[in-house]
Amino acid sequence: MARRTDTLDDLRHRLAAFVAERDWEQFHNPKNLAMALAGEAGELMEHFQWLTLEQAARLPKATREEVALECADVLLYLLRLCDKLDIDLAQATRRKLVLNAKKYPVRKARGKMTKYDKL
Amino acid sequence: MARRTDTLDDLRHRLAAFVAERDWEQFHNPKNLAMALAGEAGELMEHFQWLTLEQAARLPKATREEVALECADVLLYLLRLCDKLDIDLAQATRRKLVLNAKKYPVRKARGKMTKYDKL
Amino acid sequence: MARRTDTLDDLRHRLAAFVAERDWEQFHNPKNLAMALAGEAGELMEHFQWLTLEQAARLPKATREEVALECADVLLYLLRLCDKLDIDLAQATRRKLVLNAKKYPVRKARGKMTKYDKL
Amino acid sequence: MARRTDTLDDLRHRLAAFVAERDWEQFHNPKNLAMALAGEAGELMEHFQWLTLEQAARLPKATREEVALECADVLLYLLRLCDKLDIDLAQATRRKLVLNAKKYPVRKARGKMTKYDKL
Repeated sequence: MARRTDTLDDLRHRLAAFVAERDWEQFHNPKNLAMALAGEAGELMEHFQWLTLEQAARLPKATREEVALECADVLLYLLRLCDKLDIDLAQATRRKLVLNAKKYPVRKARGKMTKYDKL
Repeated sequence: MARRTDTLDDLRHRLAAFVAERDWEQFHNPKNLAMALAGEAGELMEHFQWLTLEQAARLPKATREEVALECADVLLYLLRLCDKLDIDLAQATRRKLVLNAKKYPVRKARGKMTKYDKL
Repeated sequence: MARRTDTLDDLRHRLAAFVAERDWEQFHNPKNLAMALAGEAGELMEHFQWLTLEQAARLPKATREEVALECADVLLYLLRLCDKLDIDLAQATRRKLVLNAKKYPVRKARGKMTKYDKL
Repeated sequence: MARRTDTLDDLRHRLAAFVAERDWEQFHNPKNLAMALAGEAGELMEHFQWLTLEQAARLPKATREEVALECADVLLYLLRLCDKLDIDLAQATRRKLVLNAKKYPVRKARGKMTKYDKL
């Protein structure tokens, strides 16, 4: 079951070991990894492309399971890319949340999906 | 600075609070979030599209910084999507690593990027 | 205005001239072009990500105009990629329509978006 | 074989007939089609993700054939999207080439992939 203490750093280490065992490091150039990440995000999206919004909000169990594994693929390539570029993903994410809070102040952004430069 | 104890669950909670404050929950249908995730992965990839593999492996500091924030965007939408679909991302990722280890046994996959069904 | 006689081959030639004048041929490796194409398709998609299906079917004029230019970007990179790989796009497309007609026979596929291997 | 007189309009009509026969019009909302287009562009790109630039420029015949059919898929969804949005794709593409010629004047853009706003 889920452990609420999982850190991104744990997952990054497990993945690095997986890659090293298979001698795949040689293929993991950041350009290639950025492509693989976008490819997986595309595969994830394809599960939703013919669904109505109502259907998307109530996935059958089997589809939800497939989607969960696609989400995992996205995270795995994202962790790999950050590892190769020496990016601290958790820190960048906290930083992005702070930046977003400035770009989208509650008072102006409330209830609207307008892009920040048009708010 | 980075805290090595950051969990995906921490980030998920911070993000949920950010969204609730802005009343954006109404837009966060899984179909829309899957699109937003793929869109951000595309933006991330665009940083690499005209680079050689050598250039991609040695990004200038300013580009690396931009890429870090794009990585954050990908993770934020991924966390949001998992939240809406009630997917435990860390657990799914650990599970996917186990599945991948079966699909790509070290002996057969070593040094090759052949897809598992052609190994 | 539109000329109903526009061929893909006309557009391909105009584009090749545009690229040659700017000495951009050197960047147009198929790998790079495939990334640029996916990137543009992602930008096109982002126009739709927060819209309901009803809103997507009735775009405001200004958005429709932006979308038209994104569609053009997708076609331009697609033509460039086919040019570099010596693929006849019109012929491949006619061929794909024939293949699709076999994969999705009218009798079985009518009114369903089920993937062919599950029909 | 290829016919050099193929127009986008021909292909658009063939495709519309294919869709009508299968009663798929109901699924072809522009939002869904934009997703399908991005998904196909992602699949196309995945053929290149582990290749060096040299390998990408010299695809084996079988891969090139698979890529040709992926290119066809991209064009088919692009034509469908334009049809639903009443966009004249050939005209938009000619217009985009004119706009690009202004954004990237030969004198400034020659030999550089710098984005127009940084030229």
